[in-house]
Amino acid sequence: MTGEEQTRRKRSGRRAGPTSSHDAILEAARAKFAENGFEGATMRAIAAAADVDSALLHHFFLTKDGLFTAAVRDVFAVPDLVATVVAGDPAGAGERLARAFLVHWDDPEVRPRVEALIRSVRSFDGAAGTVRDFLAGDVLGPVVAAFGGGRPDLRASLLGTHLLGVVYMRYVLRSEPLASMEATELAATIGEACQSYLTERF
Amino acid sequence: MTGEEQTRRKRSGRRAGPTSSHDAILEAARAKFAENGFEGATMRAIAAAADVDSALLHHFFLTKDGLFTAAVRDVFAVPDLVATVVAGDPAGAGERLARAFLVHWDDPEVRPRVEALIRSVRSFDGAAGTVRDFLAGDVLGPVVAAFGGGRPDLRASLLGTHLLGVVYMRYVLRSEPLASMEATELAATIGEACQSYLTERF
Repeated sequence: MTGEEQTRRKRSGRRAGPTSSHDAILEAARAKFAENGFEGATMRAIAAAADVDSALLHHFFLTKDGLFTAAVRDVFAVPDLVATVVAGDPAGAGERLARAFLVHWDDPEVRPRVEALIRSVRSFDGAAGTVRDFLAGDVLGPVVAAFGGGRPDLRASLLGTHLLGVVYMRYVLRSEPLASMEATELAATIGEACQSYLTERF
Repeated sequence: MTGEEQTRRKRSGRRAGPTSSHDAILEAARAKFAENGFEGATMRAIAAAADVDSALLHHFFLTKDGLFTAAVRDVFAVPDLVATVVAGDPAGAGERLARAFLVHWDDPEVRPRVEALIRSVRSFDGAAGTVRDFLAGDVLGPVVAAFGGGRPDLRASLLGTHLLGVVYMRYVLRSEPLASMEATELAATIGEACQSYLTERF
């Protein structure tokens, strides 16, 4: 048993492996970030909600930024993203990319986390930059790199910007006709715009 | 002198024509919406900040939505927008549209109002829908209509979504390389994506 688990056991009075502490922290973090915003949610409050010592949060995630990235990571964890986008006609890559994200976000397990993510981000706080950096760098960076165009950072940034805008309209504002369209139909509609950031010369 | 002006004169002790009351309300509204968010700012607090009776706000703007739209209108008041986009090679329409907005937003008088607008909008409140409806309907609707493609509401909505995403990245998050690019260079970069919503078949 690690020191962290002993700490947790002492506080909670029940046994818990590191995986369940880890998951309990992520679940508490998603709820607290959504409730109070990234800036408003404290590590202490998240620890209390997860019923663990706050030292364990720092042990697992180092910083609040790290915890936030871990908590929202699966919103962007589209399975086999690069392979899906690269396979097939290059002219359809933008639509495949859009479809992969929209199908993922429509998943009933993922969708509440999309909404929690947006609730966590207040216009001017640090979380917006963290989301942008994670989406553009870790998630879209490898996709853009696979197409080899110049200015990959700019391409990934604009692609991420447009995808997040569509998320916001579809899942948060529920703005029609975006909210009610099938994922595949909406993907066909935004496919050309996404394509321009993958393959257009600029 | 109107009843509203008499009311104002009684409260403030100084003479003011309807235009200056109108402008004072808009200025106070921009500041209060930015400070407290659309939901948090009350008509009463805006009236107090403008030193007018709150009945005058309702007289001029009917509702808080109406006041908000009036307060943010010039953020989207690109001069001669439709004529600028329609004139010239149709293949360059998307870039002309993007350039017209970016040059307008870079104007030192407009830019603080762009930031105030974003500060006013909290993720889930009514202001986000008001901005979307105004941009997609009143501002972009006539541009999209000029190109005659099907599903004009969908086109205007997605075009507006992308432009607002770029606003947010460039002026609020100040995310590089978007923040430091010249308006014309950034317009060339997002031009194809904008073009797809004007002329692509889907």
